[in-house]
Amino acid sequence: MQNKTFNHNRRHFLRSSLAGLAGLSVASLVSANKVINDNLTVLSENFVPPTPQKLLELHYNENAIGMSPKAKSAAIEALNTGNRYRFTEAEPLRALIAQSHNVKEENILFSAGSSDAIRIAIAAHATPGTQFVVPELTYGDGEDFAKAYNLKIAKIKSNPQDWSIDLKGMQEAVAKYQGPSIVYLVNPNNPTSTIIKSNEIETWINSKPKDTLFILDEAYAEYVNSPDYRSVDYLIAQGADNVVLLKTFSKIHAMAGMRVGYTVAVADKIKQLQDHVELDSLTLSNPSIQAATASIQDKDFLAYSKKSNDSAREIYLNTLQELNIEYLPSETNFVFHKIKGDIEAFRQRMLEENIKVGRPFPPANDWCRVSVGTTDEMIYVSNKLREFRQKGWL
Amino acid sequence: MQNKTFNHNRRHFLRSSLAGLAGLSVASLVSANKVINDNLTVLSENFVPPTPQKLLELHYNENAIGMSPKAKSAAIEALNTGNRYRFTEAEPLRALIAQSHNVKEENILFSAGSSDAIRIAIAAHATPGTQFVVPELTYGDGEDFAKAYNLKIAKIKSNPQDWSIDLKGMQEAVAKYQGPSIVYLVNPNNPTSTIIKSNEIETWINSKPKDTLFILDEAYAEYVNSPDYRSVDYLIAQGADNVVLLKTFSKIHAMAGMRVGYTVAVADKIKQLQDHVELDSLTLSNPSIQAATASIQDKDFLAYSKKSNDSAREIYLNTLQELNIEYLPSETNFVFHKIKGDIEAFRQRMLEENIKVGRPFPPANDWCRVSVGTTDEMIYVSNKLREFRQKGWL
Repeated sequence: MQNKTFNHNRRHFLRSSLAGLAGLSVASLVSANKVINDNLTVLSENFVPPTPQKLLELHYNENAIGMSPKAKSAAIEALNTGNRYRFTEAEPLRALIAQSHNVKEENILFSAGSSDAIRIAIAAHATPGTQFVVPELTYGDGEDFAKAYNLKIAKIKSNPQDWSIDLKGMQEAVAKYQGPSIVYLVNPNNPTSTIIKSNEIETWINSKPKDTLFILDEAYAEYVNSPDYRSVDYLIAQGADNVVLLKTFSKIHAMAGMRVGYTVAVADKIKQLQDHVELDSLTLSNPSIQAATASIQDKDFLAYSKKSNDSAREIYLNTLQELNIEYLPSETNFVFHKIKGDIEAFRQRMLEENIKVGRPFPPANDWCRVSVGTTDEMIYVSNKLREFRQKGWL
Repeated sequence: MQNKTFNHNRRHFLRSSLAGLAGLSVASLVSANKVINDNLTVLSENFVPPTPQKLLELHYNENAIGMSPKAKSAAIEALNTGNRYRFTEAEPLRALIAQSHNVKEENILFSAGSSDAIRIAIAAHATPGTQFVVPELTYGDGEDFAKAYNLKIAKIKSNPQDWSIDLKGMQEAVAKYQGPSIVYLVNPNNPTSTIIKSNEIETWINSKPKDTLFILDEAYAEYVNSPDYRSVDYLIAQGADNVVLLKTFSKIHAMAGMRVGYTVAVADKIKQLQDHVELDSLTLSNPSIQAATASIQDKDFLAYSKKSNDSAREIYLNTLQELNIEYLPSETNFVFHKIKGDIEAFRQRMLEENIKVGRPFPPANDWCRVSVGTTDEMIYVSNKLREFRQKGWL
């Protein structure tokens, strides 16, 4: 399978990444994350192995490096006015986000994380007889909300060879359906960590299939290295009214617990969505607004966040390669790889090592989703994989 | 009008309040709020008059004392795991809230403030042909969401003598309507700061009018002193399935910017509401969850918060009485009083003094809503009222 294609130049790439890291004064950014040394199998001296009381959390695709120190400081400062409604204090953040997508402020709608943005998009388009077209193996919240709003679910089987999304099958489901369709695509996809090539999605969106809304969930976009990928934001900037783009500060910004998400869409679409949320700036707490505002401007942190993920992911992929374990090319902060036997048994064995890995993603029951932690954490879990192999468990 | 009835024993009450405050070591709670001295017209030495850069904010019914120091500390601590989803960390808060209303955890639904709780309640009951029955003079979010969900609005005129809610008129609107009704009541009411006597509301709810949902918004309940008032929570504890109770940490807890609200209802009703929000604990940020958890347990702070409001409100009411300005009995952290001429002119004059007071609440256009600030702030604004009187503006 595809693991072979990801071998070339890995160590060279890793070394150049680290050179970049050094230039950023990483230690001053997040002191707990030392620049990793040349020996990618040796843990840092200050690494504390997980315990039953403090598990190694690799199950929620969180960003282990922690939020930007500048974001944290801004949040602490904001607590001084935690007693006040700050109706307008999200506006500088809105402007910065708009600028980052080359759209206007009127094209942005905040939500408490992007999960609620999925709800909002579906609620605003849930007319009777609408079908919800979704790949078999993807993030589940879309389907959950579609069921809550009584949509007809059209779940399109993935290719069980590499769990790739059957885009043609989804297109056929839309084409043959009489009523309106909502198409939900996570790109890069979760749990597979793979991308759909942007030109394929863009061609479909640009063909403007009748009565069809595209929900593009790009939570992991900032981690992508593939040249075949770009955000759909530029289509919205050009006026595409059949697509809503969902984004989050939970991943590259390491702010999952701060609940900052947003939607990008044409102005009329945003107005339509607004009915399904309170005044959108009030969905965010003041500390979260100020943390996000600081984080989006902290280019050093964002570069570090990306490079840390690249490096830590490489450590894990190297191990999978070394153990000849099949995996999908990862464009995210997690890795989807094959295991021996059932995921529940593997999870249990990992838990006995005080490590939490991803939940079952049926029908891929002999695959595991492992979130990328710090470089040390990936060295640690890599060593566990090697032990499992020696015990014949993997 | 009613101002006469609020004269008796005011100064005696104020002195006993302050005795209570002293017992709580107020200075250790919020150092900026000194215990006020016996002379209620003399500002504390450390009071800084407002400037155009730092206005005196008496326009949003916020709690000027600031959040509990314990809540602030808990929020700062939570920032250390701001990179993590904390799916279960709101559960202790849910248990504490449930306990405070004598209901179970299954009876509580979190939302980002109680504004979103209004949306959720209306969205979950917005069937075609539903009417929304609302007093003429009350908080506007209910009507706004009802319009967004295409409900028929039945706005029942208030009594222009004292802006009291015409509960009988609302009952008639429900009785004569063929389809389902949603009744929205804020108690104590905003902007009037008055209560509807609980027995009147309870009698109506208990009569179980056909196809009628009651939304009871009790944002200000903790400020009430009247013996004629109690929360409807005990009806829900007894199984009333036709009422949802909305609550917020924005007022007595001084956490408006932290966005913590919740709904209390029977379990089946909560399940119905859940479809209109993401996983409810994820509507709250980690720092907000931890701040609220600390605040609800900080009984000293909550007692101080109540007593500070009682004392500061008394200062303002004394001034209104002294100037023979008509006002409504206040059971909240704001006061609704008559002015001379139009509210817009009065607001502008206050703004020129660097003070923000409430917006226009038509048709009560010669009335002003002033939020209760700190004791010093109310002495300061009282002095401005006296100056306005001397200038013939009031």
